[in-house]
Formats: sequence, C-alpha cells, structure tokens
Amino acid sequence: MRILVDMDGVLADFEGAFLDRWRAAYPEHPFVPLHKRRTYHPEEEYAPELAQSVRQIYCTATFFRDLAPIPGGLEAVQDMVRSGMEVFLCTSPLRDYQHCVVEKYDWVVRHLGIEWSKRLVLTKDKTIIAGDVLIDDRPSLHGIATPAWEHVLYDQPYNRHVTSKRRLTWKNWREVLGTGL
Amino acid sequence: MRILVDMDGVLADFEGAFLDRWRAAYPEHPFVPLHKRRTYHPEEEYAPELAQSVRQIYCTATFFRDLAPIPGGLEAVQDMVRSGMEVFLCTSPLRDYQHCVVEKYDWVVRHLGIEWSKRLVLTKDKTIIAGDVLIDDRPSLHGIATPAWEHVLYDQPYNRHVTSKRRLTWKNWREVLGTGL
Repeated sequence: MRILVDMDGVLADFEGAFLDRWRAAYPEHPFVPLHKRRTYHPEEEYAPELAQSVRQIYCTATFFRDLAPIPGGLEAVQDMVRSGMEVFLCTSPLRDYQHCVVEKYDWVVRHLGIEWSKRLVLTKDKTIIAGDVLIDDRPSLHGIATPAWEHVLYDQPYNRHVTSKRRLTWKNWREVLGTGL
Repeated sequence: MRILVDMDGVLADFEGAFLDRWRAAYPEHPFVPLHKRRTYHPEEEYAPELAQSVRQIYCTATFFRDLAPIPGGLEAVQDMVRSGMEVFLCTSPLRDYQHCVVEKYDWVVRHLGIEWSKRLVLTKDKTIIAGDVLIDDRPSLHGIATPAWEHVLYDQPYNRHVTSKRRLTWKNWREVLGTGL
C-alpha cells in the first residue's frame, strides 16, 4: 500500500501559523478562526482588499520553515513506514515558490530527518503521482490525469461540505485506512 | 502521450558548467572532458581525495540557476506541448538541496516562463511518476515501484555502455518517439 501524504493542513499547521502571524501583523483587521473557516484558501475568507496582505503572510521567508507539526502526524507517517507501507510526502509549492520550496525540505529534514527528504515530492499536479491513497485537506484535487489514488480527506473545518469522500484525522487513520494495525 | 523529461544532462548542461567551474577553481588538477566521461557521477571520474572538491562545485549557490540550456531542448519540450503531448519536467534534487531546489524552479521560469513551473516535479524516486516515456540521461533508474514509463536514454558519452534502451537527442526526438511530427 502506497500512501501519499500532503503537508500543509495535514502534517504542518499552515492555518495556525497564518492566524498567529495575521493577528500579530494586523491587529486592527478582523480574523477568521480555524473553526469558522469555510473555504480552502485563506484569502477567500477576507475582504478582497485584504487578499494581497493575506498572501504576503505566507509568502514571507520562514513561514513554511517554522510551521508547527499537526499533532499526531509525524508519528503517523513514521508508524506507516514501520508497518511496511510506502509513504511519500506529496506537496504543491506556491506560485511564489521562492521561499516555500526549500523550506518544505527544511521542514521535513528538521522534523523527520534527512532520509525523509527522499520521500518528498513537489508537484503542482498530484494526479500523476501513483499511489493507493492520497491524504489531503483540499476539498477537491484536479490535474491532467485520472489519479490511481483514492482521495481521503484530512478532516478540516473548511472541507466539511464534502460528503462524497472518506475522511480521517491522525487520531483515527488506522481504522479509516483499514490496515488493522 | 505523457512525456517526463529530466533536467540535468538533458535540458540543462550540468556537465559543461561543472567542467568550466572545475577548471577555473582548480587549474592545477586534472579534468575529464565530456567525451571521455564514462560514469554518470562526475566525482567517480576523479581521484577519491578530490571527490569532496568535485561535489562542492555543484553544491555552490548559482550553479543550478546558471546552467546553460542544452541546445534544442527548450524548443523540443515546447514543441511537444504544442503538438498536444503532456510534458512534465521530472528532476531529482541533490541530497544537499539547499540551493538546487529553488534554483531548478528559477531555471525553469527563466527559460520557459512561470507557467512551466506547474510542470516541474521534484522527486528522488521517479518510478512513482505516471507517464509513457521518461527521457533521462541516467544509465538506470531505480525506485520503489515498477514504472509505467519506458526509459528512453538521452544520449551522453557516460551512458553509451547501455545497449538495452532506446536513446535520443534533441536532434532526433521526433523520429525516436515516433510521433510523426
């Protein structure tokens, strides 16, 4: 069984860091806490005139490097490997790639070690990556191919409108993936 | 038809840049011109005590960013797209990833434009990328999966010992791929 695991919103707490930095940078502006988020892209939750400021938060150097791990995620992927599953970390860089690409490698090395950098796959189109399952918080994933994988949603407030897909968290991944571990 | 195209030694002239920088940095040391290269990794062509100096050449900032395009390559991949083929640039970062990952994106944007950054796939294991053909100068490619693609060798002096694979250059790719273009 080959499992592809997304990073932001699944292993790395993108939303938490965004909110912390947003509130620190713009205390005068409104903010949308995670449990009230209804769209995948943070900028869609804010007024159009704030979109550029929102993007600036996560395009800044150190943003991706310093993301906190989502509790249970690092242990889960390590447990998967220990139990013989093939695991790849499958992540899409921002169009403003200048900081995020190297910082995604830094993050993996820092939290999982240099050997795990071999499991990192950077691709805008995840449909061409061959796997059995893709664990991703994005409501829907599109690309050039019909993917081999089943998209299992990593449960987040902003993807709860999707009812057609199985979903999991790092608390119940064993049951959902049905590995009987 | 989906074509995966490697970067170093296929689209980007890694060997030429290495040789230029090596000779400039170490005029007192021997050098191995491209037509005499018999192994894929440059450091294997030099005495063991020079291996670290060899690696330092291509781990230096700006090395990947400033690679010259291999003649015909950029036109070929653009022609492929124009003729309806699906093209992805499929490249493996160095273990010393600090400069090369962002510089591979920079290179693609500089020579092909920002839209082509969406076609860039960074992965150590190319066997999990789904495609019909992988054009790569590496004599053999290994990974976790049985690849869907046929490995077509990009002809280089250091892979001529391989006789079991079809090979191409940017002069004859149309004939070899049999697209009849």
